[in-house]
Amino acid sequence: MNPGDRVRVDREDRTYEGVVLPSSTDDHLVVKLEGGYNVGVDRDEAAVEVLAEGAYEIDGTDSVGSEDDEDGEASEIEFDEDLPTISLISTGGTIASTVDYRTGAVTAQFDAEDVLRAVPDLAGRANYRGRVVANILSENMEPPIWRELAEAVREEIEAGADGVVVMHGTDTMQYSAAALAFMLETPVPIVFTGSQRSADRPSSDNVMNAVSAVEAAKSDCAEVLVCMHGSESDDVCALHRGTRVRKNHTSRRDAFETIGAESLGTVDYETETVEFRRDYQQRGDTDLAIEPELEDDVELLKFTPGMDPQFLDVVEGSEGLIIEGTGLGHVHTDLIPRIEELIEDGTTVVMTSQCLEGRVCDRVYDTGRDLLDAGVIEAGDTLPGTAKVKLMWALENSADVEEAMSTSLAGELQERSVPWE
Amino acid sequence: MNPGDRVRVDREDRTYEGVVLPSSTDDHLVVKLEGGYNVGVDRDEAAVEVLAEGAYEIDGTDSVGSEDDEDGEASEIEFDEDLPTISLISTGGTIASTVDYRTGAVTAQFDAEDVLRAVPDLAGRANYRGRVVANILSENMEPPIWRELAEAVREEIEAGADGVVVMHGTDTMQYSAAALAFMLETPVPIVFTGSQRSADRPSSDNVMNAVSAVEAAKSDCAEVLVCMHGSESDDVCALHRGTRVRKNHTSRRDAFETIGAESLGTVDYETETVEFRRDYQQRGDTDLAIEPELEDDVELLKFTPGMDPQFLDVVEGSEGLIIEGTGLGHVHTDLIPRIEELIEDGTTVVMTSQCLEGRVCDRVYDTGRDLLDAGVIEAGDTLPGTAKVKLMWALENSADVEEAMSTSLAGELQERSVPWE
Repeated sequence: MNPGDRVRVDREDRTYEGVVLPSSTDDHLVVKLEGGYNVGVDRDEAAVEVLAEGAYEIDGTDSVGSEDDEDGEASEIEFDEDLPTISLISTGGTIASTVDYRTGAVTAQFDAEDVLRAVPDLAGRANYRGRVVANILSENMEPPIWRELAEAVREEIEAGADGVVVMHGTDTMQYSAAALAFMLETPVPIVFTGSQRSADRPSSDNVMNAVSAVEAAKSDCAEVLVCMHGSESDDVCALHRGTRVRKNHTSRRDAFETIGAESLGTVDYETETVEFRRDYQQRGDTDLAIEPELEDDVELLKFTPGMDPQFLDVVEGSEGLIIEGTGLGHVHTDLIPRIEELIEDGTTVVMTSQCLEGRVCDRVYDTGRDLLDAGVIEAGDTLPGTAKVKLMWALENSADVEEAMSTSLAGELQERSVPWE
Repeated sequence: MNPGDRVRVDREDRTYEGVVLPSSTDDHLVVKLEGGYNVGVDRDEAAVEVLAEGAYEIDGTDSVGSEDDEDGEASEIEFDEDLPTISLISTGGTIASTVDYRTGAVTAQFDAEDVLRAVPDLAGRANYRGRVVANILSENMEPPIWRELAEAVREEIEAGADGVVVMHGTDTMQYSAAALAFMLETPVPIVFTGSQRSADRPSSDNVMNAVSAVEAAKSDCAEVLVCMHGSESDDVCALHRGTRVRKNHTSRRDAFETIGAESLGTVDYETETVEFRRDYQQRGDTDLAIEPELEDDVELLKFTPGMDPQFLDVVEGSEGLIIEGTGLGHVHTDLIPRIEELIEDGTTVVMTSQCLEGRVCDRVYDTGRDLLDAGVIEAGDTLPGTAKVKLMWALENSADVEEAMSTSLAGELQERSVPWE
């Protein structure tokens, strides 16, 4: 049996006809069906008959039996009505370098074939839709692409996706996940995943992360999640709330951690069990809604001893500034009059802490109180990067920005789990 | 028995005469001896006879029997030759608000009396010398004060201190500890400590941290250490290498953590045992040396998506720039030509990662290689804040700054403990 052969598959009480794809192995066939969807077939569990050898030419660049309709829209045909439909959206990065494998050109869409060719283990878990929003290394991610990504997610959910997996480079995944968490009200899971090690390396995490993300996208947690290795082994992926997660290691596969709380849940790779240990928004609890506008003119400044006050001049005229202060939310006293001027000129200034864990509290020490008197807003325990994204969003979408920055909109600001005393 | 009484104390095989200080309690006397040193006396273990009631007037502002010599120098008289001499240097902050309790004026020196009045538990552990280098909240710490602090530490060691405890606000303790680690070669321990909760709060950590820091300063680890609570209980303090430590929580008493490794050791509060679990520089291994000059014109910039490139304009003409990049050490591609211009104009640009854990490695992805081609120096797993301090030091004191930033000078850059594969 070879790629391109037309086959009939008998498995349990179902019979399919389709074309064998190149991602097939001796143990595992991937068969493209008439509707454009692919199905993975375990040879041990199915009887396969070749109907026509070499019925289709497969060269890897011109995909066989593309799922695209004639008008170029992704097919919405569901192959297996017993399986949910998961939309895979690629933005680039290490994981997409596997899935979106067609060399060179950025393609606007990719199909289930591409997905299954790259990650055969995805077969049989869902019906897949695929699209490409960007093809960039994630350090080049920019707020305008967050908007495009949010719109793409909305379209996929409107088109019937039961869950969305966003493949994203790991460098800025936490910023993008936070952006979508603020932009979208979602009735289904939106799961970011990526890869710390590319597919050509023996320790690659791409397959397990992709499979786990699909399982999470099938779960009943209708939030924006990040799904990445939860340990150094290949046993579980952790599910992190998109607004509370941080890449805490440059290279480890379990680099992503929820800050200030346990992770929301886990995906057990062996048993394919998705479990949640904390409360979350249930599938279907909210209707789909989108507010994708962002104020781009927001900066983040990390204060360190000896910082040049001129950095504040760059912020002059900006709409917003996140300060990553020390400890409970402090900066050098000399900077406070300048910060007050910025606020008087209309810049919204929000304090976070470079400690990353714990809440800012500027009522304890003199310099903190001076900052509050100057009009600085405290962001509680919101992570600095999340606070930047949130302020960009709140400046466009909140009637009361100070109230918004002091309130949890998408799980980014926790009730004080560790009391401050 | 009241403060001001002149007493004779018989304890074991020693007899002292001195004046009872106000820090005394029913169970515990603090007695100022003729030489200016104070001794703590457990009433259960000593016979105390009042020689003259109210022999001295004590009002808390005019200290009795100051240890200062007539020329204003701190006394070097050792009271108990069996005990080491520990120098306590105050820079301000929550812990010093206890010890340096005289309200209002900044005093240039404080004496053992002040220390023991505030923290009676320090009695009997060492002979104490005290001095004030600054009296500031640590967010106001600046590089020039690091130099003064390093000079003060040098003077104390030259004057015979067997160990130095630096009392410092917690906000910027890690930066100051790193500065001293680069500036000083030390034959004795230099131990930073502070307090996350002030003395008037039931959960204050000031006593345990101060006592543990003194015990660490008596140990044989001749490095710059940070000694703070090692857990949420009052059981152990952790000892962190000054260049690898970070305040990772805004309010918890165990906020300080060693990044990328276990902490160097612990002080068991109950047993007063100092233990080290990793290699360290032994007491007396090196001679005292100081190189306190810093290049102040060094900035740190944290890259986040959407960052205004104008922040790089502020750096124009600066001697050094630390970038806190994403992941393995990346920034948006559009910034690279500007960074290259800075380097061509003479700015030393060093890459670190906002992940905090793990090494930067710019040889993996295109944008990283472009940064290396532009002349960016990789700082391994050096923490961003430590890298800033190090670059300030290296620009003044290293013949080859690139080599210095790529090499461990004071434990700040670890051999790769987690292999990158």
